[in-house]
Amino acid sequence: MVTKNEVKYIQSLYHKKTREAERAFVVEGPKMLAELLRSSYSLKHIYATAGWINQAPSGIAVTEVSAAELQRMSHLETANQVIAVVEQKIMEKPVSFHGKITLALADIQDPGNFGTIVRIADWFGISQILATADTVEFYNPKVIQATMGSFTRVGAWYGDLEEILQNAGLPVYGAFLEGTSVKQIGRVEEGIIVIGNESRGIGESIRNCITTAVTIPRRGEAESLNAAVATGIILSHLAL
Amino acid sequence: MVTKNEVKYIQSLYHKKTREAERAFVVEGPKMLAELLRSSYSLKHIYATAGWINQAPSGIAVTEVSAAELQRMSHLETANQVIAVVEQKIMEKPVSFHGKITLALADIQDPGNFGTIVRIADWFGISQILATADTVEFYNPKVIQATMGSFTRVGAWYGDLEEILQNAGLPVYGAFLEGTSVKQIGRVEEGIIVIGNESRGIGESIRNCITTAVTIPRRGEAESLNAAVATGIILSHLAL
Repeated sequence: MVTKNEVKYIQSLYHKKTREAERAFVVEGPKMLAELLRSSYSLKHIYATAGWINQAPSGIAVTEVSAAELQRMSHLETANQVIAVVEQKIMEKPVSFHGKITLALADIQDPGNFGTIVRIADWFGISQILATADTVEFYNPKVIQATMGSFTRVGAWYGDLEEILQNAGLPVYGAFLEGTSVKQIGRVEEGIIVIGNESRGIGESIRNCITTAVTIPRRGEAESLNAAVATGIILSHLAL
Repeated sequence: MVTKNEVKYIQSLYHKKTREAERAFVVEGPKMLAELLRSSYSLKHIYATAGWINQAPSGIAVTEVSAAELQRMSHLETANQVIAVVEQKIMEKPVSFHGKITLALADIQDPGNFGTIVRIADWFGISQILATADTVEFYNPKVIQATMGSFTRVGAWYGDLEEILQNAGLPVYGAFLEGTSVKQIGRVEEGIIVIGNESRGIGESIRNCITTAVTIPRRGEAESLNAAVATGIILSHLAL
């Protein structure tokens, strides 16, 4: 049984302000919960229907709810067995970028794109994402769900990207419509790869920090590629 | 001024059965309309608010509607200036696959994925997509919108993919979690690239037609990549 106040509290976590004030966020569905339980994230509360509880690992405190109650707490069109309230992690400002590839997002706006990019980073073994303050929030429920669980292995630090790029002391690659072909660049051992906003690309101040413009050669007529698709393509050439 | 019947008719086109019976579909927004007007598609009717009409090319028949009327006809959360009813094209069964790369979709279910894949195909200059009967419908409005206009340059033929693959007489590449690395395969001059269903991958009957299993090597722990992202990565290695 769940109280009205609990339902209200979870619904309030679908607003960024509350998430930030509470330093909490919401995760939904059995697959996501399985990833969460394997991770170092602290769970504050789990609400689930009987079916999930019967298969849950032992020793986990869960409040049993009806399907209708779960739907009222969910931000999904169709709620899926379990909802957890989870403590946010505070990511320290990264200090070294040597010997690895780091992904930097300059004002990515679409939560689905960001979540998909986190999943791509996880696929290529990148555990650290830098983001401008204007990038969509990591703990936005649509970002979290789109990561398919990869949010547990990839961290995002928000801050002054320009300052980091200026002082990193290693190659900074930026995705542009014109530049050196990803194929020509090939595998790199270290560097920061910057992906820009979905419609405006990389803004001027950050553009000045780019040491190599990277492009995905176009053979046809589409005006652009989706930001997450472009990220996947660039990483498959530079990080493999 | 738009009649109730016109509004009802457009709403009915959000159902696959009506689209198929009417051989029509709906396209929304100024950017999509611009692509459509440059294409060989036949427009049956355009409904637009005054702002769009004032900037429209001359000689186009448009019914002026209010913003509220447009919203009632729209399938978007926020309607965007213009909605067109367009005649579907019938795609002939492709007969030759030599000297080029063809994309084949085996049961892709998500309209957003399919639309994004059409946009990727267009980027890489691929104008022909083959699809199993169980692949989401090309003229689904969510597919069309996700193509960002690329549907005007890329055609999809639905039918017996297995039969085509068996008789194509050239390499058939399939995306799998294990196989030869995309990087190792590199650029190919001709072939059919098969992308499978989002959760089940490529089914057995089509798997038997694959001559080369292609994989995107994983360095991290994500379970999978999004189907559109995987398509983009594979094409960036095999078609560039």
